[in-house]
Amino acid sequence: MAEKKASITHQLQAAKHKSGKSYSQLAKETGLTNVYVAQLLRRQAQLKPETAPKLQAALPDLPQELIQEMMIPPLRSYDPNLIQDPTIYRLNEAVMHFGESIKEIVNEEFGDGIMSAIDFYCSVDKVKGVDGKDRVVLTFDGKYLPHSEQKSEHMVSRLRSE
Amino acid sequence: MAEKKASITHQLQAAKHKSGKSYSQLAKETGLTNVYVAQLLRRQAQLKPETAPKLQAALPDLPQELIQEMMIPPLRSYDPNLIQDPTIYRLNEAVMHFGESIKEIVNEEFGDGIMSAIDFYCSVDKVKGVDGKDRVVLTFDGKYLPHSEQKSEHMVSRLRSE
Amino acid sequence: MAEKKASITHQLQAAKHKSGKSYSQLAKETGLTNVYVAQLLRRQAQLKPETAPKLQAALPDLPQELIQEMMIPPLRSYDPNLIQDPTIYRLNEAVMHFGESIKEIVNEEFGDGIMSAIDFYCSVDKVKGVDGKDRVVLTFDGKYLPHSEQKSEHMVSRLRSE
Amino acid sequence: MAEKKASITHQLQAAKHKSGKSYSQLAKETGLTNVYVAQLLRRQAQLKPETAPKLQAALPDLPQELIQEMMIPPLRSYDPNLIQDPTIYRLNEAVMHFGESIKEIVNEEFGDGIMSAIDFYCSVDKVKGVDGKDRVVLTFDGKYLPHSEQKSEHMVSRLRSE
Amino acid sequence: MAEKKASITHQLQAAKHKSGKSYSQLAKETGLTNVYVAQLLRRQAQLKPETAPKLQAALPDLPQELIQEMMIPPLRSYDPNLIQDPTIYRLNEAVMHFGESIKEIVNEEFGDGIMSAIDFYCSVDKVKGVDGKDRVVLTFDGKYLPHSEQKSEHMVSRLRSE
Amino acid sequence: MAEKKASITHQLQAAKHKSGKSYSQLAKETGLTNVYVAQLLRRQAQLKPETAPKLQAALPDLPQELIQEMMIPPLRSYDPNLIQDPTIYRLNEAVMHFGESIKEIVNEEFGDGIMSAIDFYCSVDKVKGVDGKDRVVLTFDGKYLPHSEQKSEHMVSRLRSE
Amino acid sequence: MAEKKASITHQLQAAKHKSGKSYSQLAKETGLTNVYVAQLLRRQAQLKPETAPKLQAALPDLPQELIQEMMIPPLRSYDPNLIQDPTIYRLNEAVMHFGESIKEIVNEEFGDGIMSAIDFYCSVDKVKGVDGKDRVVLTFDGKYLPHSEQKSEHMVSRLRSE
Amino acid sequence: MAEKKASITHQLQAAKHKSGKSYSQLAKETGLTNVYVAQLLRRQAQLKPETAPKLQAALPDLPQELIQEMMIPPLRSYDPNLIQDPTIYRLNEAVMHFGESIKEIVNEEFGDGIMSAIDFYCSVDKVKGVDGKDRVVLTFDGKYLPHSEQKSEHMVSRLRSE
Amino acid sequence: MAEKKASITHQLQAAKHKSGKSYSQLAKETGLTNVYVAQLLRRQAQLKPETAPKLQAALPDLPQELIQEMMIPPLRSYDPNLIQDPTIYRLNEAVMHFGESIKEIVNEEFGDGIMSAIDFYCSVDKVKGVDGKDRVVLTFDGKYLPHSEQKSEHMVSRLRSE
Amino acid sequence: MAEKKASITHQLQAAKHKSGKSYSQLAKETGLTNVYVAQLLRRQAQLKPETAPKLQAALPDLPQELIQEMMIPPLRSYDPNLIQDPTIYRLNEAVMHFGESIKEIVNEEFGDGIMSAIDFYCSVDKVKGVDGKDRVVLTFDGKYLPHSEQKSEHMVSRLRSE
Repeated sequence: MAEKKASITHQLQAAKHKSGKSYSQLAKETGLTNVYVAQLLRRQAQLKPETAPKLQAALPDLPQELIQEMMIPPLRSYDPNLIQDPTIYRLNEAVMHFGESIKEIVNEEFGDGIMSAIDFYCSVDKVKGVDGKDRVVLTFDGKYLPHSEQKSEHMVSRLRSE
Repeated sequence: MAEKKASITHQLQAAKHKSGKSYSQLAKETGLTNVYVAQLLRRQAQLKPETAPKLQAALPDLPQELIQEMMIPPLRSYDPNLIQDPTIYRLNEAVMHFGESIKEIVNEEFGDGIMSAIDFYCSVDKVKGVDGKDRVVLTFDGKYLPHSEQKSEHMVSRLRSE
Repeated sequence: MAEKKASITHQLQAAKHKSGKSYSQLAKETGLTNVYVAQLLRRQAQLKPETAPKLQAALPDLPQELIQEMMIPPLRSYDPNLIQDPTIYRLNEAVMHFGESIKEIVNEEFGDGIMSAIDFYCSVDKVKGVDGKDRVVLTFDGKYLPHSEQKSEHMVSRLRSE
Repeated sequence: MAEKKASITHQLQAAKHKSGKSYSQLAKETGLTNVYVAQLLRRQAQLKPETAPKLQAALPDLPQELIQEMMIPPLRSYDPNLIQDPTIYRLNEAVMHFGESIKEIVNEEFGDGIMSAIDFYCSVDKVKGVDGKDRVVLTFDGKYLPHSEQKSEHMVSRLRSE
Repeated sequence: MAEKKASITHQLQAAKHKSGKSYSQLAKETGLTNVYVAQLLRRQAQLKPETAPKLQAALPDLPQELIQEMMIPPLRSYDPNLIQDPTIYRLNEAVMHFGESIKEIVNEEFGDGIMSAIDFYCSVDKVKGVDGKDRVVLTFDGKYLPHSEQKSEHMVSRLRSE
Repeated sequence: MAEKKASITHQLQAAKHKSGKSYSQLAKETGLTNVYVAQLLRRQAQLKPETAPKLQAALPDLPQELIQEMMIPPLRSYDPNLIQDPTIYRLNEAVMHFGESIKEIVNEEFGDGIMSAIDFYCSVDKVKGVDGKDRVVLTFDGKYLPHSEQKSEHMVSRLRSE
Repeated sequence: MAEKKASITHQLQAAKHKSGKSYSQLAKETGLTNVYVAQLLRRQAQLKPETAPKLQAALPDLPQELIQEMMIPPLRSYDPNLIQDPTIYRLNEAVMHFGESIKEIVNEEFGDGIMSAIDFYCSVDKVKGVDGKDRVVLTFDGKYLPHSEQKSEHMVSRLRSE
Repeated sequence: MAEKKASITHQLQAAKHKSGKSYSQLAKETGLTNVYVAQLLRRQAQLKPETAPKLQAALPDLPQELIQEMMIPPLRSYDPNLIQDPTIYRLNEAVMHFGESIKEIVNEEFGDGIMSAIDFYCSVDKVKGVDGKDRVVLTFDGKYLPHSEQKSEHMVSRLRSE
Repeated sequence: MAEKKASITHQLQAAKHKSGKSYSQLAKETGLTNVYVAQLLRRQAQLKPETAPKLQAALPDLPQELIQEMMIPPLRSYDPNLIQDPTIYRLNEAVMHFGESIKEIVNEEFGDGIMSAIDFYCSVDKVKGVDGKDRVVLTFDGKYLPHSEQKSEHMVSRLRSE
Repeated sequence: MAEKKASITHQLQAAKHKSGKSYSQLAKETGLTNVYVAQLLRRQAQLKPETAPKLQAALPDLPQELIQEMMIPPLRSYDPNLIQDPTIYRLNEAVMHFGESIKEIVNEEFGDGIMSAIDFYCSVDKVKGVDGKDRVVLTFDGKYLPHSEQKSEHMVSRLRSE
């Protein structure tokens, strides 16, 4: 399955390369975030029916059978060695070193719950810092999900056999 | 922090022991699932204000200051060696061996999404099998969460600096 | 061996795809749980002789030689990277975070024993929650197995050579 | 919890030491296997009510409150570094090197199932080899458990909500 | 050293608790991001001389000797088990699943370089989504650092011994 | 080397399959234990010259060049993922949970030494339990090896250079 | 992707081999450090436009299409088993054993910050020691990066939605 | 148990320190190898009854109750972090890098078997190399153990139940 | 042993703190590299007799009994979690990403051998880069050690027993 | 690279097999230790120019181009799974269990230093024990390397920029 995914990703990247467009350009043409477009072209997200024509318009060399394939829910995965790459390592470092602080602020501001990684948006932006130098801005925007209190009367699936 | 959690859990278990009640009895008296009551008494879940009096009524020896402590969002954790215990290993075995099948059925029945472990209920029940022997029934009941399509116009937090 | 298993699974999935049926439909036609059908089609379970004709009726494109293969006890396995998939990770998270509570309830309700993962049923169901939203219900139903007390007189295999 | 277990084990071993008896002698006096007696005295097995008086007779210095403690289902565990000990390593080596062969013979002789480690007996015996030298005989004797075919009609717990 | 850090963190948290202020309130009073304040109070960042009086004004119960301690560069660290906490795991999941896409966009928009985790800002904000529900927004804002081309003439430290 | 071993094993299994005989039947015909026969057919043991004709008689389709190959000492190995298989996991579980008890009984009954895994016999048997149900009996029978006291005068290899 | 990288590296090494030049010779001809040249020829660094003609002059057999490929930002990676090689292990040993001392000296001499591994030079030199024997000198020369104090007013990307 | 072992080792080392003798001196006085003496004083080997008086004569400050303790078979163990020490790492490096060669030579010279680590001698010696410089010589001298052919008739423990 | 080392290190650091001197100042006063001084004060190196008076002069509060302790060869070690610290991680990252290149240059310039980490010097320096900004320079200077060709006649320790 | 090494090793072994000579015979003909010859034929050591003709004489079927290849410094490596093999595991067990004792004796006899694994000889010999049985003798003979005291004046490479 990993090989099939790699082969499809290879074809998707080739279609993008042929178009000469960046992820951010494709994002503008399709109305998606730039990170989400990149995920689509690596088979890490599902292509929705209403978005398919927009993507096809933006990437005219995208083969029709790949469009079909991209609409199947993918098995999300990653190569564990990715963490060797300096860009990815530093993101991981930030999450682990700042994680406990982030959790406590979520608890203070929202309550006992988490930021969803499923109902979730992500984008990469370029800004100028106060010193006029380029800065990378990575935004994670996820729905707040409170831990449910597990009341029996609300558990529809509960067995009534006791 | 781990030691503080262990010490609180120890006191909570002592209060339960003194009451002579099982988790299932406490569940009935508080209107919660039996697993959730056990999580509360191990500081793996937050005690909600409206539930506190019910728990206090069910466990009269619960010290007032612990009640306050139980209302703080906990740092959820577990001892990695727990997987050595045969009961817990077999649950893990089932998840890993059946996991891919479960994922595919969720995709077929619901779409490209997951079962939430946050908006989530869990209970343990006892039933008789067709051979008349006791069986353990473990129910996981979580909200279906579809992976969001990341449309820029829906991303309220997006920087407008480009 | 892993490659042979992958190749058989590939053919089994192709036969299912050609039929256009979901695991739950196949489950109804064969009288099995939906998870078990999925396990059969991934060579994680043994096809029993009396079930073979039902499966063949449900999946007419299933080649006869695969039917033979499916009746051999499989080497049960999984890709350790599966845990990266969000659906599977959340199941694992629930097992590890709730595991100790589940074990204690089993001890209280049944005694010193475990839920078998061998004499075991598993199904995925779709229900509406109290808020009218879809919920995934995963049921694990396993025979209760008490840890045996190891009495010498009951140990038929014991050497009599002392 | 690990410390409590270690402290109880320490007291149990002291009582045994005071008695001057070996595990095999205790096994004969209590009608249990020698390995099971050792497990009891390390809090890796539950002491059953009918066996308690026999153990107390065999180990007169066993404090009464420990007897109570020993009747609670234990959290089974082990120090992962145990595998460094040459005796234990060689058992593990045998299991891993012979494992696949053992599995195949179980399949041929019994069918698609396993040897239970729960309904299970274990003993260590001393025999003379054909060369007249001492040999250690370790016997694992577990109930054969066939993997259940998951038929919906036999799954008592199944939701009827579809 | 880990114990000393834990003990200082404990005192810092107590001073914050006594003040009754949240991290976001402290952030406003000190002109820092809320995540950075939390890092200061967990000894994961160095308190700068000009900020010390502001922090002391915001947290009047902060002992003077801790202020001195907070100005020493800390050994940055984290408990690897933090990843068990659902909030922190989901951040890590996002980084690993989206990481390769983020890297490629950085390369397209900036060139061959990374987002620094040292010249770096981080904040947690609360926004309303298009559905009116609360969302957590986590912002990572780091200086873009291009990989240097290693020209000998620019390497001031180079040995001239060849 | 792993691939060569896999390919030879594949041919050996094919010869066995063609014969229609089980490992236990082959064991009876060759005078070996059933586990040892299985090890031979997976290239985990060396075929001895006097046994070769018996094996060839029992498996007439065994190619002559494989017989030669089987007489070379093998590199003993296993796939670490084998531990995922429920049969093999449960053996490992028993070794780790019972290991310290087994070691102590060996010490009491034999002295400071181990059970050899080299001068070693292993068999799988089928017995009826006291409840009339099938049980798997696994026997490990290894020579007792005492840890040698390292006396200089007995160390023939010792350098005399001091 | 790993295979593509390996194949390109193979061709690059062949071109170097054909030239008969060492990395240090190539370094002198291109004005780069010897380590950086080696990184370029293993696709661990990006070839800059102004350096491309120099490299091509130094390695006339370098195919034109590889030059294009070398100008794409690489995914930096390494085989984790490299640490088995004695040369590389000893470097790692030095970093781990001396690391805490190095960190403390950086803090004393520079402040609360790090040595960048991105704005970074590295070279290997050969010197004679005081005993006249050859010594390897490895120089790591990285820009000092102070940990930024995260002041809200300096965080250009901050959401203004509170 | 680890703490008890550490505390005994501490006392044994103190007795040695007080004597002012090296392991090699103690080795000569007791007739043991120097490595074995060191193992005795770290509770990694059992003190034999006939050697006890010699050790006591060599180390007059050895308390009598420790002598008793040293005659109990120890649980052999080591701190996994020992491999960080350069001396121990290099031994491990040699074993792993030379291991396959050593195995093949054992096979050629002896047959299909191993060097026992139980019937085993080990010493450290000091010699002058051909360049007149000091060299460390480590000798491992273990009994050759052939892998047994598992003939049923030689397996005394075999069940006769088939 | 780890605790003893930590306690000695704590006292050594206190003596340095009291002196108000940096590692580089101590280095100048003792004629050692700054990194080596830091290693001495963390018990990662042995204090030599002729250097002891210089260190004592530089750190007058160093207790005499610690001087004795510092002259014992230490067990070199490190906390594996050190790699979490950003300074140390980046050094490790450089070693792993540049390691293969460094090895190849050593081979080209010196032959088949390594840089010793034992006959080894290490220092941290501060330089200005071409842009006038501070840079950290870390120098590793180790003796070149060629892999010896293992000629029998040169192996003084060889057994003559064949 | 691993594949290239495996393929060369395969050819080297074939040439040895064709010659019908053992490693010990080749050792005698080439004047090398038997282990070193085995390392050469597995590409774990560099063939020296003066030894090449002797090896070629001993192995007439060795292809000329392989001789060239064998003179390149190899990337030393091993399959981590080798430790599964009983012969290699027992060597590793001895190193880890005896390691701390060996280190302490090296310190007592030589000083604060190590046994080099680079200026190193290794051989396998066959001797008769006092009981007349075969014993394997493994000799590790390495140069003693003292940890250098890092004096600034002896560090030729030191920057003079302070």
